[in-house]
Parts: sequence; structure tokens; C-alpha cells
Amino acid sequence: MSLLVVGSVALDSVETPYGHKEDVLGGSATFFATTASFFTPVRMVAVVGEDFPEAHVDFLKSRRIDLEGLTREPGKTFRWKGRYGFQLNEAQTLDTQLNVFQSFAPRLPASYQETPYVFLGNIHPELQGQVLDQVKRPRLVAADTMNFWIQGSREALLKTLSRVDLLFVNDAEARALAGEHNIVKAAQAIFRMGPSRVVIKRGEYGALLFDGEQLFALPAFPLDQVFDPTGAGDTFAGGFMGTLATSPTLTHDTLRQAMVMGSVMASFTVEKFSLERLREVTLPEIQDRFAEFKKLTHFEHIRPVAS
Amino acid sequence: MSLLVVGSVALDSVETPYGHKEDVLGGSATFFATTASFFTPVRMVAVVGEDFPEAHVDFLKSRRIDLEGLTREPGKTFRWKGRYGFQLNEAQTLDTQLNVFQSFAPRLPASYQETPYVFLGNIHPELQGQVLDQVKRPRLVAADTMNFWIQGSREALLKTLSRVDLLFVNDAEARALAGEHNIVKAAQAIFRMGPSRVVIKRGEYGALLFDGEQLFALPAFPLDQVFDPTGAGDTFAGGFMGTLATSPTLTHDTLRQAMVMGSVMASFTVEKFSLERLREVTLPEIQDRFAEFKKLTHFEHIRPVAS
Repeated sequence: MSLLVVGSVALDSVETPYGHKEDVLGGSATFFATTASFFTPVRMVAVVGEDFPEAHVDFLKSRRIDLEGLTREPGKTFRWKGRYGFQLNEAQTLDTQLNVFQSFAPRLPASYQETPYVFLGNIHPELQGQVLDQVKRPRLVAADTMNFWIQGSREALLKTLSRVDLLFVNDAEARALAGEHNIVKAAQAIFRMGPSRVVIKRGEYGALLFDGEQLFALPAFPLDQVFDPTGAGDTFAGGFMGTLATSPTLTHDTLRQAMVMGSVMASFTVEKFSLERLREVTLPEIQDRFAEFKKLTHFEHIRPVAS
Repeated sequence: MSLLVVGSVALDSVETPYGHKEDVLGGSATFFATTASFFTPVRMVAVVGEDFPEAHVDFLKSRRIDLEGLTREPGKTFRWKGRYGFQLNEAQTLDTQLNVFQSFAPRLPASYQETPYVFLGNIHPELQGQVLDQVKRPRLVAADTMNFWIQGSREALLKTLSRVDLLFVNDAEARALAGEHNIVKAAQAIFRMGPSRVVIKRGEYGALLFDGEQLFALPAFPLDQVFDPTGAGDTFAGGFMGTLATSPTLTHDTLRQAMVMGSVMASFTVEKFSLERLREVTLPEIQDRFAEFKKLTHFEHIRPVAS
């Protein structure tokens, strides 16, 4: 089934201990859509400027991403510049130029309005709400957010969250949103805001899924080379939602598989700059890494010896 | 088979956001031995002072821990005082009084010399080496260490490590020891120092096992109440080594089960102060939590849909 994403399409400049790149393809919608397109048809709502290279548009089209909702506006494309140290978990933002993104008002083409799976990328919660106003009876609405909105636009965020089924956040965001340090209690507090499922992203430490009373924990794949973590979170969400969108039923087991597939895809993204690794990764590689996750985490039952 | 532990027996004073306790039973050997005693006979080498309460000795005896190697010396027992904030991962040490521990020179009773499993708790690497001088043909030697020795006694530590089969360290210690930020490469660097197995302890994020080319990752059990993390690492090692000591063969699968049992036991320790939870926990509770770890981490294979 199709999957709608609204978010940013950007030109990123990134410095890591392993090199730097200028004005490469980035943005939450880009990473999400490219990843999800391995699994399901994707519809994108986003905006770019006059300077956005046509080659990037061609790449997205080649991934069978529906770009009817991608508008080109006068001005420049959204730009983000960041740096990572050896501690690759968190980026230091050096510069943000919103450009055409500043006046972004997501408008859905008529053909998008009945999309069953919706992912609201990390944009202003009011804009996320405007997207929900335009979709009809979605099967599942997922959203991402960040501390900037949690602290600066709490009212609007809570309004949007009341319409969201599944929230993706990291540890710090979950704690800030819930006002609760313990992560189990934080997830329970977020349930009371609307979402019935919460995914906690923990970077190199993996991810947690709170699905009502059920709990799933997955470590990240230990890589001997992490090149550029940019886009890992959106890649995770893309693999997760892409997996859900292709599953006949939405069971708890499917959500677990979606967690693994999200982690599989994110583990590829960080191996190279920008979308370089996602551009070249093959389905057999994806299947192999899924199997490696199984090997990584599997253990046999044991019977403790009586004392 | 029996299991030898050398380490500290202490009186701890601990402050957490949930309360504080003065002069309660603590120390690496205490947490380790109490935990391992659920699975196998344990022999302890440690020292206490004249002020060490007889009730604590009686408790250790009641856990069928062999105390022939526990000496009582003139002076006071080792004392540690620490504080945890809401970020319970790391303690702030407020005071350390070595007392009788200052002149500790581990001497093994004759009856201990043929112990097949040896755990060298976090003490000076030269003392760890002295223990190894006194054991005959152990089947497996495991050790713990910390940044204090990695930075201050590197030579002695490297000498001891060349005689160690399995090392327990946390992320930061592994990185400091190896001089390498990437944790996979750090483990490979530690292999070259002697140990053929490295366990990376990550607190609330779980643990990693590097066993030659094989890799196992386990998340920690998400608890809605973490009361006092003191002793979690030694409890983990106690559950791990206790499991190995009762296994007929030392296979990679056994090491994975040992990782889970270490995590199971540590998840109990942090639920209350000191050894309070370990004193009362029952074998059925341990078995139940092992099964919960299975539920927490299990997922089914998937076949990705062709793009």
C-alpha cells in the first residue's frame, strides 16, 4: 500500500572525521522516501528551490517516488550544514538556511488524499496538522519531532500528537516531551498524549518499541566504520514504515520486523556520505543484513541450576 | 564447577534521587559472589576490617560462598561513598577510604588453587597478576578493570591482560584501553592484547559480546524503576561467570546465554539498594525474567518485497 511522506528536501554540507561534502542531497523526506521505496510506492510532499539539481529529481523518480507533491518555488533550496566529531551520535549544526522551506505550506495533490500510511517528518507541528487535515481515513499516522518543537511549540505539538498513532523520538526528546527521566514511564506518558505506539531511537545503541503493554528492544548493528550519521533516523523511519505498508496485517510481530528493517536500512546509510550507500545497496544485501541482525541478537533458552 | 573471585568487600554509602543508605554491604567481590552463588559454588578472596559486621559474613556463608580466602585485618573496612543523579548511568564518587584494602595482597588458600573459573575483580592489575600466579591451569580467566588502571598502570595492566581470556569493560574503558573510538575496532585491538573475548557493558543500553569473529548484542531490560545502579557491573559478571561455570561445554551459544543471565541478574540488583534485591530474588523470578528477555528481543524473519 502507498505511503505518504511530508518533510524536507535539502542540500547538506557535512563534516565528519572521515571527510567533508558540500551541498549533497539530504533532507528528512529524501532519506525517508528513498528508503521506503525499496518496499512500497511512496508519495512525497516537499519543496525545493530553483537551484535544486534536476539530477536529484531524476534520482527520486528512478526510485518510483511519486513527486506530484514536490513543488519548485522561486529562491534557494533549504540548506543544512553540520559537523560530527568522533562521538558520531550527535551533530553540531553550523548553519541552517531555511530558504524556500520558510514559507512551506504542504498541499496534497488530490491523488494523495487517500494514502493509507502517513509519515509526518520533523517539521512544524502545525504543518504536520495541515497534512492530516488533507488525508482521508489513513490506516496509520506516524510522526517525528524534535526538541525545538517540544520546547518552542508545545501546544501545537500536543494538538498534532492527539491525531498521531505512532511517534518516533530519541531518548532525550521522549524525556523532554514527557517531563519524566525514566524511559518506560516517559513512553507511558506519551501514550496519554495520543500515540498508542512509541519508538525510541538510540543511535548506536539501537531502538525500543513500546506497543501498548508490549515491549521490543533491538541493539544497533555494530559497524566497524560509521562514516556519516546524517539521515539515519529518517532512514530508520523509512525502513520501518515501508515494511508496515507492505504487510497484510498490522500485528505486533509486524512492528518488530519493521523495527529490524528500520535498523537494517539505517546501518547502510551511515556507511557512506549522504545517500551514497542507499543508492547502491541491493535487495540481497538488505536480506543478508536482516539475517545478520537475527544472528546478532539470537540466544537459546536456559534452565538455571538450582542453588 | 567452582568459581574464584578476588575483589573488594566494602561498606557503601549511596545517595540516589530515591533515597540514601549509610554503610551498607557492597564491593565488587560481594556483588559478584552473591550473584554467582545462585548457579555454582564460589570461593572468595578479599579482606575486611575489624568493624565488618558479622551478620554480613553470615549472609555470605548462607549463600554457600567459601570464605576461607576472606581475611579480617586490623583496621577499618574499605568504604565507598557515591551519588547518582537522575542520569543513573554514572556515579559521582564522593569519598573513598581504602583502609585495610590499601595493603591487600591476595593470598589463595591451598584449597582454592585448582579453581577452574577465575574472575579478577577491578583491583590493581599487579594484584590481579598475583592471583594468577597462584592458580593452576584455570579453564577460563576473566577480568574487570577501569580507567584508573588503564591510565595510571598501563604496563601492569597489559601484562595481566596477556594472561586473561575474557575482559569486561564499558564503552569508555574499551576506547581508552584501545586508543580507538570505534567499538568494533577497539574490541579487535583488545584481542591483540591477550583476551580472545571482550564483553562491553553499556549500562541501560545493554551489552556486547565480541567472541573472535562472532558478535552478540543484547539490550538491557527496560525497567520502570531503577533505584540504585551500584554493583550492576559486578552482578552482570557474576551471572555471566556463574552460568559458564555450570555449563558442560564452553561454546559460543553458552556465552550468549551467560550474557543474558548477567543482564537478568543486573536488572534485579538495580531495583533496590545494595544487595537487597539479590537477597530476596528467587529462582522462579530469575527464570521468568530470562524468558522476558527472550520476549523482549525476539523477532521473526522477513522476506523484503522486491522493489
